[in-house]
Amino acid sequence: MVDDQILPIIRKYKEVRPVFSRQLKVAGEAESRVDARIDSVCREYTDVETTILSSPGIISLYFTWKGDPDKESATQQLDELVGKVREKLGKKVFSDQDDTLAKTLGELLEHRSLTIATAESCTGGLIGKLLTDVPGSSSYYLGSVVCYSNAVKERVLGVDVEALEREGAVSESVARQLAEGVRERLESDIGLATTGIAGPGGGSEEKPVGTVWLGLSWQGGTETRKLFLPGGREAVRMRSSNLALDWVRRKIL
Amino acid sequence: MVDDQILPIIRKYKEVRPVFSRQLKVAGEAESRVDARIDSVCREYTDVETTILSSPGIISLYFTWKGDPDKESATQQLDELVGKVREKLGKKVFSDQDDTLAKTLGELLEHRSLTIATAESCTGGLIGKLLTDVPGSSSYYLGSVVCYSNAVKERVLGVDVEALEREGAVSESVARQLAEGVRERLESDIGLATTGIAGPGGGSEEKPVGTVWLGLSWQGGTETRKLFLPGGREAVRMRSSNLALDWVRRKIL
Repeated sequence: MVDDQILPIIRKYKEVRPVFSRQLKVAGEAESRVDARIDSVCREYTDVETTILSSPGIISLYFTWKGDPDKESATQQLDELVGKVREKLGKKVFSDQDDTLAKTLGELLEHRSLTIATAESCTGGLIGKLLTDVPGSSSYYLGSVVCYSNAVKERVLGVDVEALEREGAVSESVARQLAEGVRERLESDIGLATTGIAGPGGGSEEKPVGTVWLGLSWQGGTETRKLFLPGGREAVRMRSSNLALDWVRRKIL
Repeated sequence: MVDDQILPIIRKYKEVRPVFSRQLKVAGEAESRVDARIDSVCREYTDVETTILSSPGIISLYFTWKGDPDKESATQQLDELVGKVREKLGKKVFSDQDDTLAKTLGELLEHRSLTIATAESCTGGLIGKLLTDVPGSSSYYLGSVVCYSNAVKERVLGVDVEALEREGAVSESVARQLAEGVRERLESDIGLATTGIAGPGGGSEEKPVGTVWLGLSWQGGTETRKLFLPGGREAVRMRSSNLALDWVRRKIL
């Protein structure tokens, strides 16, 4: 059996690896700002190499021990450094494993017995996809209304036509109504909404490509956030999704 | 300017490359069956190397000229081979460029002035994500109801409680009602639905992980299809999505 041969190797690898490296995942902050915040701390630890990898909305930090292969000092120094980095970044750190943001948020929702529903315009189902990538997500994720057309925003989520005509689909008022509408109709504890211009077309001087409104509705009320995001269509959509998920995570914390 | 230096190189590359290689993308067929169908044809062309790459639900075929760098005979033989392979695979070929299935389907929908809406249970928003990856998709894609919970299936899409209780969410009856419900409520020409068990949990002897029902509702009526899909959660979801999109594409053709 192949499995029987590989398993001991995996076990051994798992035993050894955590001693020599650590990982932190960070959301809601640009790479350059994360770098600036932790740079001086990282420099103190000359035996640790810090690598920063960024994807839209998520920064991964890897700390690898480069000193003598002495388990005790490696563990101690890595733990010390990670502790200091965590202090610098606070709630922005969402995982010290390789978890996705959706998984971390899912665990939080489950732990607090909260349910969430989404109303997605510019992200077109991506937030639902990310949430349901996680096995067991049906216990807290009720569903989404992907309201790509204005007619669906009106008919299914009750957004008023006047707001759509007066302010446009990408507006604070519509983001608010989408979040409230989906929370009410799907009977969830939390309603999360996105509406924006992912590009490449559809931008204007007033609302350039990358303009995104998020809406978050919960028992404490409804809040909105306006984002101006860099990058192409794919990056804008992924960044919007991750920033939206992270907003909910921080709100619950 | 970097662009000014790179552009001529890209132009030259584009000029040369189509002569020496071709690509076909195929949906709705397993790699082994594609291979079996085209193997004898490909063997006739000893100067062409055929490479098959597969991802869940999609097979990419690459034909690369390995003979003398003579433009005329390369073009002729590649075109001949591609023509024969197309004959063997028929409608299963959806692109001779590097287009996604969602892009090809989108062009078809736009050309026929048809709109589509989706009701996604097991795919959780992935079909919406794939459709809206394509810029301009708002002209034919109205939106989706991601009905991850049974309550959303009932409340938002009008699936009857009895069917859910009697046959379960993963059933022909529910797939049919989801497709019809979303087509009616979102007022689209086509309603496409998925409901299945993506795993790793939730499977049973009767409905193992990988059991997926698709529903397709259009002016000609409503049809359903039952799938048993291999692979893990991610593969089942991606395969379901691609098979669903491809079903619509073939229906329109």
